[in-house]
Amino acid sequence: MKKIMNHPEAFADETIEGVLLAHPNHLKRAAGTLRGLVRKDAPVAGKVAIATGGGSGHLPVFLGYVGPGLLDGVSIGNVFSSPSVEAMVAVSKAIHAGKGVLYLYGNYGGDVMNFDMAAEMCEAEGIEVKSMRVRDDVVSAAKPSAETRRAVAGLFFAYKIAGAKAATRADLSAVVTTAQRVVENTCSMGVALSPCTIPAVGKPTFTLGEDEMELGMGIHGEAGIERGKLRTADEIAQVMSQRVLDDLPFRSGDEVAVLVNGLGATPPEELYLLFRKAHAVIEKHGVRIQRVFIGEFATSMEMAGASITLLKLDKELLSLLDAPAYSPFLPQLRGSR
Amino acid sequence: MKKIMNHPEAFADETIEGVLLAHPNHLKRAAGTLRGLVRKDAPVAGKVAIATGGGSGHLPVFLGYVGPGLLDGVSIGNVFSSPSVEAMVAVSKAIHAGKGVLYLYGNYGGDVMNFDMAAEMCEAEGIEVKSMRVRDDVVSAAKPSAETRRAVAGLFFAYKIAGAKAATRADLSAVVTTAQRVVENTCSMGVALSPCTIPAVGKPTFTLGEDEMELGMGIHGEAGIERGKLRTADEIAQVMSQRVLDDLPFRSGDEVAVLVNGLGATPPEELYLLFRKAHAVIEKHGVRIQRVFIGEFATSMEMAGASITLLKLDKELLSLLDAPAYSPFLPQLRGSR
Repeated sequence: MKKIMNHPEAFADETIEGVLLAHPNHLKRAAGTLRGLVRKDAPVAGKVAIATGGGSGHLPVFLGYVGPGLLDGVSIGNVFSSPSVEAMVAVSKAIHAGKGVLYLYGNYGGDVMNFDMAAEMCEAEGIEVKSMRVRDDVVSAAKPSAETRRAVAGLFFAYKIAGAKAATRADLSAVVTTAQRVVENTCSMGVALSPCTIPAVGKPTFTLGEDEMELGMGIHGEAGIERGKLRTADEIAQVMSQRVLDDLPFRSGDEVAVLVNGLGATPPEELYLLFRKAHAVIEKHGVRIQRVFIGEFATSMEMAGASITLLKLDKELLSLLDAPAYSPFLPQLRGSR
Repeated sequence: MKKIMNHPEAFADETIEGVLLAHPNHLKRAAGTLRGLVRKDAPVAGKVAIATGGGSGHLPVFLGYVGPGLLDGVSIGNVFSSPSVEAMVAVSKAIHAGKGVLYLYGNYGGDVMNFDMAAEMCEAEGIEVKSMRVRDDVVSAAKPSAETRRAVAGLFFAYKIAGAKAATRADLSAVVTTAQRVVENTCSMGVALSPCTIPAVGKPTFTLGEDEMELGMGIHGEAGIERGKLRTADEIAQVMSQRVLDDLPFRSGDEVAVLVNGLGATPPEELYLLFRKAHAVIEKHGVRIQRVFIGEFATSMEMAGASITLLKLDKELLSLLDAPAYSPFLPQLRGSR
């Protein structure tokens, strides 16, 4: 295992220390926990607060999405592990401004259990909480069971748009409604070329042959749909784009935002090669690309691989996607066009 | 070799195609070459034009630094290879607005030779050209031979600040003077944990044992100063920060901008671990950190590793560093504080 780190057990805590030293005017700790960060200006008066959370090892997911026009707070677990209920409650209290809290996070078992318990505890203290789970990975379950799908890079669109909606001072039910429209219109598929190593485990999460790739693999190494010989960029982009297009399904005339996400070790050059072909497949399908995001928006440590995400836009979603926002962790908060 | 690509020979050209499809309102081709990109609004009236160039495989270096408040154009070589003189001349003509052109690029032999020839050809056609080479890698040559040092991530500061200076409509000699002050006050040192593979070569640029790292290695795998066992994040940050501090040397009371740059496969979490310790070393030295940049600003394909760069600030350099700029390739154009 080759990692730049100190003690594996200290990995998450020391990362948080580094983040606070680097961005002291952007983030602060939530009172009562070492594993919760909130906007420096939290709580923001008159605004629905949005919290997320999840394991470390996915930067900019999760803590990189806290900021103006984005989320209000984040609870942080160890690498690929759920945050504690206590951290979630502490973050909720630190960001709540009297307008309720939305828990917006990825659909993973441990996170669901802990966020549900935190919601109960907050409700008992008079804080209204709603929950919305992102589940954009189309190959993780069949369409009729879409509610059980896991989250991948589609988290970006949910965070960006729900954050912008909350910034308009919309009420909790309106923020939930908009977030739900994002979740229901976001589809992703990924490919992995190499594993990553969890610091405390010390060995790769899985193995792949020197000439192999796995289509559809999840961001923690969850099994995909096909393991086989490494294919060309065009072939990979063709398969992923088509599968995503067919899932929603996206129809001729639809307008979309496209996200080509790198999982960690894949160079930007290769992401642009994927986009080059995805662009052709999407346009041929009659779908119009309105915004493009390419870079590392959700990673798995040093895993090599990528994903393609499409969000079907409507007028409000596009306007919220374009709204101002800031985080030092994000390469493209403004979609290109 | 595991790369998401089509034909190795097409890697650079297809990357450029993907970039133009993704960011059609940001960049366009320079007339007369497939290997030159310029700002969509080039030439910008009344402004000194700045061109850079170099091999592919280092995104966001080089083409990611073209944009408002940054550079005007870039010539693009194959992976880790110099661009052609023809591309450089075509870019120069496409960006020249009658106020002269600055060639601002990394100090590498092939690039120097080609840019010098391009400058001669432009001068023959009446375009005034000045050249400035970035050479921030402190271990690549001893201090008395600083002029021969190679460039690493310090390119970021040179591009950002020279671009901002040119945007003020300063004349060519003033832009050169400011760029020179950046070059003379920027020091970097890197560490490599794994090699990368050039598509057309098909095998890693070097080998490192499973438990080894190389301090001071260049971004193309140039030899460093010490190969040895992988050390902790704190030890690595201590060695790199101290070496950089001692080189200029930076003195107590100096104000600096800090850049912790990832080479490709190193997760953001590990960069924040490095910053955590670098922060302590720098502050202990009495140097005051005014701005922080952490992320991938200059990469080597999928190489694992990082570098630490310090820029000694003065009032003008800080103001230019903070000036507005835009590129879809850059994680943090606004330094954190």
